Amino acid sequence: MGITTEIEIIKYQNSELKKVTDTVAEEFPLTVYINDIEFATLVCSPEYLENLVTGFLASEGVITSKKEILSVNLDDSGGFCHVKLHRDIQPDHFQYTKRILGSCCGKSRQFYFQSDADTAKVSMTKQTLSPEQCIALMKEMQETSTIFKETGGIHNASIASPEKTLVHRGDIGRHNALDKLYGHCISENITVRDKILVFSGRISSEVLTKAAKIGVGIILSKSAPTDLAIKLAHDLNITAVGFIRGSSFNVYTHPFRIKG
Amino acid sequence: MGITTEIEIIKYQNSELKKVTDTVAEEFPLTVYINDIEFATLVCSPEYLENLVTGFLASEGVITSKKEILSVNLDDSGGFCHVKLHRDIQPDHFQYTKRILGSCCGKSRQFYFQSDADTAKVSMTKQTLSPEQCIALMKEMQETSTIFKETGGIHNASIASPEKTLVHRGDIGRHNALDKLYGHCISENITVRDKILVFSGRISSEVLTKAAKIGVGIILSKSAPTDLAIKLAHDLNITAVGFIRGSSFNVYTHPFRIKG
Repeated sequence: MGITTEIEIIKYQNSELKKVTDTVAEEFPLTVYINDIEFATLVCSPEYLENLVTGFLASEGVITSKKEILSVNLDDSGGFCHVKLHRDIQPDHFQYTKRILGSCCGKSRQFYFQSDADTAKVSMTKQTLSPEQCIALMKEMQETSTIFKETGGIHNASIASPEKTLVHRGDIGRHNALDKLYGHCISENITVRDKILVFSGRISSEVLTKAAKIGVGIILSKSAPTDLAIKLAHDLNITAVGFIRGSSFNVYTHPFRIKG
Repeated sequence: MGITTEIEIIKYQNSELKKVTDTVAEEFPLTVYINDIEFATLVCSPEYLENLVTGFLASEGVITSKKEILSVNLDDSGGFCHVKLHRDIQPDHFQYTKRILGSCCGKSRQFYFQSDADTAKVSMTKQTLSPEQCIALMKEMQETSTIFKETGGIHNASIASPEKTLVHRGDIGRHNALDKLYGHCISENITVRDKILVFSGRISSEVLTKAAKIGVGIILSKSAPTDLAIKLAHDLNITAVGFIRGSSFNVYTHPFRIKG
């Protein structure tokens, strides 16, 4: 396994849309079992996985030295790691969010949590955007984000129509910025399906899942998506546009909504 | 409450260390109760908190519309939000990681999870770094991070001595990159207390806590820390250096370890 993968995308550059090959980061769900009980699912880059599991258990306070570990069995093909300790662990260390195992929710095989599969929506919108609108919405978001310039520590997100930004939120947590938008739309009874989500950060599978929960059909970002986010966007019929910088950008999925 | 705050820092610029005032992002722990039962603690920027809670509950699948909410009572001063729903919620929605309430662990009052307070260490190291070493270590990390340049999606971290990088790891998840380093140090029996952690991303309270768990006394970052990370670094005796760009940087805490 590598930690990046090559994919075909649509690139907009010099006022033209064309097919090119691009490199994106892989995102790999690894479910850790301790003494045969499911402990946690980490979403990670697939390398140094034994170090990751050891370090994660130490930082969660489950182990304090490697002597406590009897064995670590890694099954990379399935995304599982079985750890045996010399002793039992406290049941209150275990989390509740269970991984989906060997099933399909009918929306995408790429989900790894049941709660996500239950709440994410497949987009049915026919809303389209011109390349100029993509660039203008990102520019507008960056101009609104004065806090980011001051502190370098805030993720920014907005809900927009093709013509303009409707609501903008910033937060130190990427998920919080998105949840604040979602909460605003719920509280104000705003219909989201024909709106666009504009986001300052990388499109990870978790961000893409959140976009699908909010219910938008198009997500614009100035950063790159991961491979798992691209697979989810494909299955959930969401148009993912990334690397919007200056007058160019990349369309990763469902380019039918971006019309020159 | 604002979402940024002003603090005094030590700035290194034009080969000089001097005191200046700087703006950093606030990081606010908000604990959500549903029907009087603790549900989750969100670490967020303190604005639009009711929208945040509504959006969070919707994206977790707890509610699907605002009609399900009977009341939302926000207590910003304590960092609590009490939500009453018209019905009971399933106990399997509840997480186990409990917030510390009204107590002090003897290391810092800034911790919000008991497990963090148990495993983070107060640094006792007398290790120092010159300004030139700070800049050289960050430059070395950025040169090693070729994957980041390719995909724009990888967080990078390394463990270094003052003279050079000892081990470098990249991951799409910031925590994973740090856990991979921690796991490596545990597996190889590497003593960490006199080492330096070099990190590509922002120093949030969670990243600072992870550094304290690994056991380093100095953290270098090319981005900004949050206010809560600065308070933790202060209490845990960790030197936090941020915004290392070109030939300048900021020292946020314990500048005695940075010697010109």
